[in-house]
Amino acid sequence: MSATRYAYLGPEGTFTEVALRTLPEAATRELVPMVSVPAALDAVRNGQAAAALVPIENSVEGGITATLDELTTGAPLMIYREVLLSITFALLVRPGTKLSDIKTVTAHPAAQPQVRNWMAAHLPNAVWESAASNADGARLVQEGRYDAAFAGEFAAATYGLEPLVTEIHDAENAQTRFVLVGRPARPSAPTGADKTSVVIWLGDDHPGALLELLQEFAVRGVNLMLIQSRPTGEGIGNYCFAVDAEGHIADRRVGEALMGLKRICPNVRFLGSYPRAGVTPDEVGALRTGTSDTDFTDASDWLARSQDGRV
Amino acid sequence: MSATRYAYLGPEGTFTEVALRTLPEAATRELVPMVSVPAALDAVRNGQAAAALVPIENSVEGGITATLDELTTGAPLMIYREVLLSITFALLVRPGTKLSDIKTVTAHPAAQPQVRNWMAAHLPNAVWESAASNADGARLVQEGRYDAAFAGEFAAATYGLEPLVTEIHDAENAQTRFVLVGRPARPSAPTGADKTSVVIWLGDDHPGALLELLQEFAVRGVNLMLIQSRPTGEGIGNYCFAVDAEGHIADRRVGEALMGLKRICPNVRFLGSYPRAGVTPDEVGALRTGTSDTDFTDASDWLARSQDGRV
Repeated sequence: MSATRYAYLGPEGTFTEVALRTLPEAATRELVPMVSVPAALDAVRNGQAAAALVPIENSVEGGITATLDELTTGAPLMIYREVLLSITFALLVRPGTKLSDIKTVTAHPAAQPQVRNWMAAHLPNAVWESAASNADGARLVQEGRYDAAFAGEFAAATYGLEPLVTEIHDAENAQTRFVLVGRPARPSAPTGADKTSVVIWLGDDHPGALLELLQEFAVRGVNLMLIQSRPTGEGIGNYCFAVDAEGHIADRRVGEALMGLKRICPNVRFLGSYPRAGVTPDEVGALRTGTSDTDFTDASDWLARSQDGRV
Repeated sequence: MSATRYAYLGPEGTFTEVALRTLPEAATRELVPMVSVPAALDAVRNGQAAAALVPIENSVEGGITATLDELTTGAPLMIYREVLLSITFALLVRPGTKLSDIKTVTAHPAAQPQVRNWMAAHLPNAVWESAASNADGARLVQEGRYDAAFAGEFAAATYGLEPLVTEIHDAENAQTRFVLVGRPARPSAPTGADKTSVVIWLGDDHPGALLELLQEFAVRGVNLMLIQSRPTGEGIGNYCFAVDAEGHIADRRVGEALMGLKRICPNVRFLGSYPRAGVTPDEVGALRTGTSDTDFTDASDWLARSQDGRV
């Protein structure tokens, strides 16, 4: 049954699987590893999976372009949930291997910037080669192709390895953000700590076009949490922007900003409104004066009175 | 009958009277000169007159503060019409006076910047003294108190004077704008070439407060035609702003900008939407992309679909 199946970026033993298992409903779903982000999202598009969990943003490297590009093009999908996972690596080795034995190491390329300083200090002469995923790197160590792999500590048991060193990370609080993506449907109701994702295409590239885009948010007091430009594939200089904004599409200030963008931009794709991971409504910053739903309703009443001359 | 009575800034023979007589309905109204702008507007407030014509903006000197302040405070009034009048002065003298006889000249203080250069060239030694109005200056010449008065040529006959020199003006196209003010009522329908006047109070004087005010207009593509700061009378640094914007309060872009101001500012007073004098709808500049009423309706439909997940 596709409704009970969740796809994720595999193979088994990736950080993505760990992130997926933090969702309560994962316990009652069949979790299916896929070979790539496009494969995971296509499984949702063609109905083989109800949803897919994929990484979308890395606190060290920024937006994950494969995921952004997949959500920007093709049949529309929507984001329903996000998961934040602190990323710390373990150095996995075959049992008995000592640090001085290690001549070659491997991991997914995204891991490298997060372990670079540690390697320079502790394995200055080891040779790095990239693997298709961190889990795949562990498998290659199991097979004897490399001496060690950087991966999640949880991957050790799966591949018969042992963690020689744990808690390796260059940036404090290195996190990866994952999103649970499904076919388009009505978003869940606002929680008071929500995020809205959209992709915005700029029209003619006149000076100030990006500023105009940002002003649509700023003038309604909507904070942006991520803005990432991506080429549209229609030639140099043609960009679209993936934007995460604070708030829910049902919040008046967010809805008004999105309508403003829809009016001035050739295309806007709504990617979903969903609860912010790791943030409670109490922790959300105060709204700018005049941007609550009540403020919008009061202003609308005032306009109606003014239009009638009841000033 | 007050409904048939229009007040204006007198005395008889002022530019204001000439401006009032350009309105077709003036022919069927009793026209009542008042001694000051506040007196003319109070006649409307207390029901003695249906409307009052008063000067509000001078193309040489800018906003006319007495009128702006009167519209900003007290019982609300609204503007229903504007009249533009080209201002050229005549030098009025008692019959027989020659230019070389003139030792003293008078006029309303607002006339001085418009005749200053002409006086320096032609009457370098004459002494200027201000009068309560240009018409009053003419009366004082008639009484022999001054040798000459700058006033409208039309005032000569009223005061038994003759125009010694005509078409005196320092600035090409010097114009004064007059507004017809009445008690609050529903504005007339948009004509396609309209203007909207508001007074906006800024709240706490944080850096960027004025910019935020301007952005509410700019982000909806609403051009401003006049912005004039006025002290609120509540201490140094407390200002309100009289603003004329292009468009009608029934235009979506104008209504949205006004609602935005109403949300972020402690007070906004709507002073009316009315046809622009001397401009036809054909002559109005093109709207910025995405700011027509249809664009607003389309964006609203798109938002409703997105909120339902129909992307």
